[in-house]
Amino acid sequence: MAKYNAEIWEFESEDLGGPAAAVILGLDGGTTSTVCICIPLLDSLPDTIPILARSVAGCSNHNSIGETAARDTLEHVMAETLLKSRSKRSAVRAVCLGVSGVNHPKDQERVLNWLRDIFPSHVKLYVHNDAVAALASGTFGKIRGCVLIAGTGSISYGFTEDGREARAAGAGPVLGDWGSGYGIAARALTGVIRAHDGRGPQTMLTNRILQSLGLSSPDELIGWTYTDPSWARIAALVPEVVSCAEAGDQIANKILEDAVQELSLSVKAVVKRLCLGGADGNGSFPVVMVGGVLEANKKWDIGKEVTDCIQKTYPGACPVIPKVEPAIGAALLAWNCLKKDTVGNCRR
Amino acid sequence: MAKYNAEIWEFESEDLGGPAAAVILGLDGGTTSTVCICIPLLDSLPDTIPILARSVAGCSNHNSIGETAARDTLEHVMAETLLKSRSKRSAVRAVCLGVSGVNHPKDQERVLNWLRDIFPSHVKLYVHNDAVAALASGTFGKIRGCVLIAGTGSISYGFTEDGREARAAGAGPVLGDWGSGYGIAARALTGVIRAHDGRGPQTMLTNRILQSLGLSSPDELIGWTYTDPSWARIAALVPEVVSCAEAGDQIANKILEDAVQELSLSVKAVVKRLCLGGADGNGSFPVVMVGGVLEANKKWDIGKEVTDCIQKTYPGACPVIPKVEPAIGAALLAWNCLKKDTVGNCRR
Repeated sequence: MAKYNAEIWEFESEDLGGPAAAVILGLDGGTTSTVCICIPLLDSLPDTIPILARSVAGCSNHNSIGETAARDTLEHVMAETLLKSRSKRSAVRAVCLGVSGVNHPKDQERVLNWLRDIFPSHVKLYVHNDAVAALASGTFGKIRGCVLIAGTGSISYGFTEDGREARAAGAGPVLGDWGSGYGIAARALTGVIRAHDGRGPQTMLTNRILQSLGLSSPDELIGWTYTDPSWARIAALVPEVVSCAEAGDQIANKILEDAVQELSLSVKAVVKRLCLGGADGNGSFPVVMVGGVLEANKKWDIGKEVTDCIQKTYPGACPVIPKVEPAIGAALLAWNCLKKDTVGNCRR
Repeated sequence: MAKYNAEIWEFESEDLGGPAAAVILGLDGGTTSTVCICIPLLDSLPDTIPILARSVAGCSNHNSIGETAARDTLEHVMAETLLKSRSKRSAVRAVCLGVSGVNHPKDQERVLNWLRDIFPSHVKLYVHNDAVAALASGTFGKIRGCVLIAGTGSISYGFTEDGREARAAGAGPVLGDWGSGYGIAARALTGVIRAHDGRGPQTMLTNRILQSLGLSSPDELIGWTYTDPSWARIAALVPEVVSCAEAGDQIANKILEDAVQELSLSVKAVVKRLCLGGADGNGSFPVVMVGGVLEANKKWDIGKEVTDCIQKTYPGACPVIPKVEPAIGAALLAWNCLKKDTVGNCRR
């Protein structure tokens, strides 16, 4: 009995037309959505990567939806991408998945086993945490350096060429990820409450946040906060904080300055543990910056401030804003590994 | 048709024996439990209040369980207390409820209407927030001064003799109640994570907290935190933090010092708004201290540190550790109002 879902792959019995050109699949699996792309296997990579097909599915984090549903999501989105690119599994040379929730070797081995059931044995398979795909999206597929992700949550990952890795932050709001979008917005809400009850100074955040939420008094914030505990809903207030900081509000400025310290500290912690800056700390390494919090604003550019702060300790830190999405990073990583595998340097 | 639950009061048709001595009911209704006590109506109050009966029920916060269930809980626990004290409703002279969730005049009016349906019209009825009962437990029934409650959550309430009131904090962990038991413990967990990933210094909190939770690595704290988001479960770690601070751990000491600042700031904010210290700030007023966080420890006494900090700004602040529980505070408040009502000074 086939261990894969035969009906998903029925399209392969049709004549897809044309010669079976070799392809690579790259996938970025997150808690919100999963993106899969298919690129041709070229001898050398052009500046602009040609995308044969792209598909999007829902969550593929096994911690969130369970193993069976995660496996089904991954298989479906890969089959859809191959169908769109008019390719069969026999044309695939390598598959690289960066999946949220893959934290331990046993998670990696489980997902590798799913892929082994789906693809022919000649296909090279690579499975990593989604932070690796984010890193690779900024390093053209190389796993070396550091990635800082700051969206609703925040996490910093570092990787060395000899396979060591380290992470910092990423523990969620209860455990103090104060540089995350959630952390920034929660502190802004706290500033509004403190101004209201007399514990803190008045701040522009009060009017700006109440207006954006359609509330008339800070008292109503308590109810608003508890009707829906979703972190993303609170993190969505970050633009209001940036806007108040740009207008000169001191509370908003202090919140962003503290966030900059937190985010750069999380990068510096992994750089130190992995000696990414070399013995003297001056060596060069990329820091890939991903996520809404790090995006440039008019006056207040959190990403640039974080970079400046990291470079004070590690002058060789090279900030990189990826030009491609993480799924393409995963495909580039597979392409690199495939090339290296000809000299037996990558693990399957 | 009677608007009260007739079957609850069937015991009143029996001969309860003895003369029908006048009594007062005091009730402290919280989110976890509700306590009702019955005291005799004495001409003057002795140092030790005689308790005729005491009953305990579950939650009576209408925000948590709905209005019908809250009303039923209150009626049942009052009936049980009267039955235990061998008293009928006709013997009751006054009822005072301090109920969590009573924040607006309309909440107060709703609960008053429930009581009006249950008790004969001669009974004096008083309904307040549960913080008022906590205050009254330290002021022998007088509503003047400040109460600081620091358990799982934290809140500060202030009251003037002419009926003005103010509150600070009490907005929950998202909105920054960092002096609460939850806030102290969450910061301690953050300290453990930061020491583990290289963002912060090593701390005794790591071994102490992992041991108390039966975990083997700080990595496991992330899963532990998210399996059960209950605030009380996290706040239960406060004794570990105090113990590490007493042993000289700097991270634990900083967390407690910051909590002291937060808690005293919440008191000072309401004192300032209500001018409880008078025009020069040197006037005398009670600060009733309630909740596990404020209880004395060996070397580290959070309650004493908070008092010292408040007195630096308001030298007339008089800390009071209540000798009786809040339900008795409610009964004493009713007793005081009943006495004043003879000169028409209390509202029904």
